[in-house]
Amino acid sequence: MTFSLTILGNSSAIPTSTRYTSAHVLNVHERFFLIDCGEGTQMQLRRHKIKLGKINHIFISHLHGDHTFGLFGLLSSYGILNRKADLHIYASPDLERIINDNVLAFNIFLPYKLAFHALDCSISERIYEDENLWVETIPMKHRIATCGFLFKEKPKLKNIRKEAIEKYRIPVKEIIRIKEGADFKTSAGQIISNMELTLDPPKPRSFAYCADTCYHKGIITKINNVDLLYHEATYTHDLADRAKETYHSTSYEAALLASEAKVGKLVLGHFSPRYKNLDILLNEARKVFKNTFIGEEGLTFSIE
Amino acid sequence: MTFSLTILGNSSAIPTSTRYTSAHVLNVHERFFLIDCGEGTQMQLRRHKIKLGKINHIFISHLHGDHTFGLFGLLSSYGILNRKADLHIYASPDLERIINDNVLAFNIFLPYKLAFHALDCSISERIYEDENLWVETIPMKHRIATCGFLFKEKPKLKNIRKEAIEKYRIPVKEIIRIKEGADFKTSAGQIISNMELTLDPPKPRSFAYCADTCYHKGIITKINNVDLLYHEATYTHDLADRAKETYHSTSYEAALLASEAKVGKLVLGHFSPRYKNLDILLNEARKVFKNTFIGEEGLTFSIE
Repeated sequence: MTFSLTILGNSSAIPTSTRYTSAHVLNVHERFFLIDCGEGTQMQLRRHKIKLGKINHIFISHLHGDHTFGLFGLLSSYGILNRKADLHIYASPDLERIINDNVLAFNIFLPYKLAFHALDCSISERIYEDENLWVETIPMKHRIATCGFLFKEKPKLKNIRKEAIEKYRIPVKEIIRIKEGADFKTSAGQIISNMELTLDPPKPRSFAYCADTCYHKGIITKINNVDLLYHEATYTHDLADRAKETYHSTSYEAALLASEAKVGKLVLGHFSPRYKNLDILLNEARKVFKNTFIGEEGLTFSIE
Repeated sequence: MTFSLTILGNSSAIPTSTRYTSAHVLNVHERFFLIDCGEGTQMQLRRHKIKLGKINHIFISHLHGDHTFGLFGLLSSYGILNRKADLHIYASPDLERIINDNVLAFNIFLPYKLAFHALDCSISERIYEDENLWVETIPMKHRIATCGFLFKEKPKLKNIRKEAIEKYRIPVKEIIRIKEGADFKTSAGQIISNMELTLDPPKPRSFAYCADTCYHKGIITKINNVDLLYHEATYTHDLADRAKETYHSTSYEAALLASEAKVGKLVLGHFSPRYKNLDILLNEARKVFKNTFIGEEGLTFSIE
């Protein structure tokens, strides 16, 4: 079952000739979640062979243009392509009015329902849930209200051992109870412990998206032990003052947080256009947290 | 002196994986005029090595998203890059309010003056003039108010023959009059005709931008004899009904208009995403008007 993050844009503030602004797709069991939507996101989706129609949920961290300017084009294209499925947008409440205004202004055709979910980025709350996954917000520290997002798989039921079914002649109606953790009583009255009957399910996987934000220790309890952390790394640490002033993070700070939160893997993004070569950001982070990677556009990070 | 059109986007309605929506740059004597601004225009400008800062005038034909969705990103990037020069936008009056709303909503930083020029697309009027050039609107026939644009060089002064200056000992103060067409009277009282003293200047060059519009004979008087005509060709002529219904043109119709208006060269653009290979549109047009070209992205069409 897939659990992977694809990077569509990694530039902060403005695009460069080779890099787009923020946009990311999380694929959980072939459900696709778009996280932020910078200008050109719809082109990047096409370029990286992610079907536009597969996206039903869009999470917007905050209302700066480098995270949102691709939204009107995407909504408009969905209309022209005659989308019928509901489209859910999770964002600061202001965005609903802005979208409505632009839909009117540019005469955007919406043959589908646009379901808006207003977020309060000052708290952490569960904003999405399906049979496989839930999503909770993480309050970021930025110049304006900003939400990070924690995506976490739900625990799966245990796997029952096939040979145990035969050995103890377990009837079908008992199987779900055993998968849930119950012991089994044979027709002879013998109690077979659940441990003997089942294998543990795979550990639920988790991903945290943290952007835009300054270094913020307060979120560690929230992102503790996630398998994959995306954290913004706008600057190298020699520009720590600039990072602080603009409520952004340095690559060193992102790595420090990853280390403190004991995450599995760190992916950096949201790079200042001043960095032509991103190795300097990678090297800075790896000194603190070895399992760090640059969120190169087009790359997919999978959690097995 | 340069007079050239560069194509930045040629897709209609929605971008494809290889084609952007409408955007074009006209370079007249190293002044750069942006015509329409689809999503990703700022990336295309960078990709095709046109410095963002060189653009001081943006002409928007109409308020459909495939001609406008790149505007907010561009305005925002200008702010981040700390632009100081005035930026002039020529468009339907509604766009001024829409821009102001979005500037507020996304907190776009404008350290430069945004000078808005409201267009009445129901008439033809002169909207811009400098020492080299004037620009007039051309009313298009589309579903909403739409302006085409006619760019025309001003006539230049005649060139004075160097050998004539020496031969007739023409004083410096007489030169401008002779360039303007006057004859010259020598100190001996002999009248030298202007024709003998001067060479004709290069013919003023002209470019007409016609999109979006259905086939519309009424504009022929306006675009008559232009050196370069950009005309939309959304469909092949087998889809003439669809073109009519949506107020677009077929490739055949664009060529017919070019032929009727006796233009020098025709560049087609604004292609429906259904055409993967654009040769079918080119071949259809060339049967009617030989000097037709596909407006491939990145191509520059120069008028010598």
